[in-house]
Amino acid sequence: MEVINKYVTIKTHVDGAPQDSDFELKTAALRLWAEPGSNDVIVKNLYVSIDPYQLNRMKSYSSSHRTINFAVPISPGMDIDAYGVGRVVASGHPEFEEDDLVVGLISWGEYSVVKGGNMLRKLDPMGFPLSNHVGILGFSGLTAHGGFFQVCKPKKGEKVFVSAASGSVGNLVGQYAKLFGCYVVGCAGSKQKVNLLKEKLGFDDAFNYKEETDLKSTLKRYFPDGIDIYFDNVGAEMLEAAVANMNIFGRVAVCGVISQYTDSGKRAAPDMLDIVYKRITMQGFLAADLMNGYTDFISTTQDYLNDGKIQVIEDISQGVESIPSAFVGLFRGDNVGKKIVKIADE
Amino acid sequence: MEVINKYVTIKTHVDGAPQDSDFELKTAALRLWAEPGSNDVIVKNLYVSIDPYQLNRMKSYSSSHRTINFAVPISPGMDIDAYGVGRVVASGHPEFEEDDLVVGLISWGEYSVVKGGNMLRKLDPMGFPLSNHVGILGFSGLTAHGGFFQVCKPKKGEKVFVSAASGSVGNLVGQYAKLFGCYVVGCAGSKQKVNLLKEKLGFDDAFNYKEETDLKSTLKRYFPDGIDIYFDNVGAEMLEAAVANMNIFGRVAVCGVISQYTDSGKRAAPDMLDIVYKRITMQGFLAADLMNGYTDFISTTQDYLNDGKIQVIEDISQGVESIPSAFVGLFRGDNVGKKIVKIADE
Repeated sequence: MEVINKYVTIKTHVDGAPQDSDFELKTAALRLWAEPGSNDVIVKNLYVSIDPYQLNRMKSYSSSHRTINFAVPISPGMDIDAYGVGRVVASGHPEFEEDDLVVGLISWGEYSVVKGGNMLRKLDPMGFPLSNHVGILGFSGLTAHGGFFQVCKPKKGEKVFVSAASGSVGNLVGQYAKLFGCYVVGCAGSKQKVNLLKEKLGFDDAFNYKEETDLKSTLKRYFPDGIDIYFDNVGAEMLEAAVANMNIFGRVAVCGVISQYTDSGKRAAPDMLDIVYKRITMQGFLAADLMNGYTDFISTTQDYLNDGKIQVIEDISQGVESIPSAFVGLFRGDNVGKKIVKIADE
Repeated sequence: MEVINKYVTIKTHVDGAPQDSDFELKTAALRLWAEPGSNDVIVKNLYVSIDPYQLNRMKSYSSSHRTINFAVPISPGMDIDAYGVGRVVASGHPEFEEDDLVVGLISWGEYSVVKGGNMLRKLDPMGFPLSNHVGILGFSGLTAHGGFFQVCKPKKGEKVFVSAASGSVGNLVGQYAKLFGCYVVGCAGSKQKVNLLKEKLGFDDAFNYKEETDLKSTLKRYFPDGIDIYFDNVGAEMLEAAVANMNIFGRVAVCGVISQYTDSGKRAAPDMLDIVYKRITMQGFLAADLMNGYTDFISTTQDYLNDGKIQVIEDISQGVESIPSAFVGLFRGDNVGKKIVKIADE
């Protein structure tokens, strides 16, 4: 059987804030057939993840391109691989067969051809909605859980600050930190998001950074006794303000730098005297490094979900055509929680 | 017995690069007598340490002032406490008696009154010159050894970059790293220092940063395979260039920020994308946190000294009057190795 596969690609490299016009929807004929023994898997995409880091891959140059295996550059016209959930429609791989649900690196399109079946595994949904496996039970969850527990090494009662706290990772970091017994304050970019953090997600406090003029004073107000852990998703002035307000032996987990993704000149210049005298550790990490915490992450999170202790915040757009605007919206703060595009019904 | 004690103090707070005129030599009568039971110890100072961090204490404001116990601000006219070696001339403390050699926090003067005997311990010179106990066998040595082994966590064969590599701590970091089996490149501010690193201290390579215009390219030249460990004593552009050249899972030990001590606006703004994608850890530390490595440090270093495997680079000025110029010279790069002032003969 042959289909016309619609997929999203970039027209040219994207070096500033992305625009809808940077993308185009292409079509190509695709035969839903895999050569036996080829190990290729043809997947009908159901849900795909929309993540800010993809912008670094779209740039003509980014220091991130030098990292082997992660953030491989995307060339104009190319398929864009992305985390997601799909259903196998044809397989030349002994581990997968037609109708299997799979999760892993698929693509921003209606169908994916996963060469060699790498980066794909069979998915048992365990009774959870498929979209959950793209976010809270996928890399967003692992990043939040592993980043918080393995990188931040929290102690009960510590004061935790999370930026982009209503985002895909931030909202989970805050919830894990609260469930663990920390004091948690988040920042976000709208009143609606701040309310979500305080009223639905159980943050101790939250503020709208767009209403603040002096972030250093703002954080002093929210953390009169200082910050022990800063889970950084944004970089720039917020990182500087957090470092200025940290306690001795404070830890900064550097998960993302969204402010710098669209403006490479927007660098954080934290006071290194604070780093030295307060003996602060700043650590960058990627979810892929946290796999040794995977079993703990997945069992804890499934328990929390089953017990209703953790909230799932998903922001789902419909259809492959909505991918560009879903992605562009990330950098305007349009999304609340995990941004996902639903490509097709199960 | 009463003496006229000469000591150095600041006239006003020192907020930029220090000048000789910021200091004055004062005199005060001092009775060489301690009240029995007072726990006070009167020390005749022999060698005192001259360290850049003291400048942070002299400022009218520095973020370092907020760190309890370290870098307590110095007020104009006050005694300036500093690490050093001396001889007890009077003691009201049961653990110390007249003629004991002691090491610890004494002061920039001819005599010190050490209240409560805190921060002082008896010194057995173990056959080493007394000045060694101010530097290589004192806090400089502990900072270098503990900073390298506990903070940088080196593996044999790793590529190590040290800035201010002919300084009190840097020269030892480089030597420890070489003895451990790393590849070591240092930078310093003169041809003479560069020669010292390569010819006497066994660095694999070294360069004069003042002759370089693009530090990022310079480090690329010296580390074509990247940097695994950066031992940072300077901050600013050098830190940015080092981060740009680091390998994945690289570690930056932030020991000092001398470029920022004299110019608080001179901040490093490393590329946080590098921090994330290369999973770099930056960690500030103080020697006082490294005491659990003290036994290892002291026995290793004494063995190296006895076997002639490690070189002692000391830069000793004579007399209490030389303290201001010795200190001011630190920020011009005048010193080669550990800067010490010899106050009196043993």
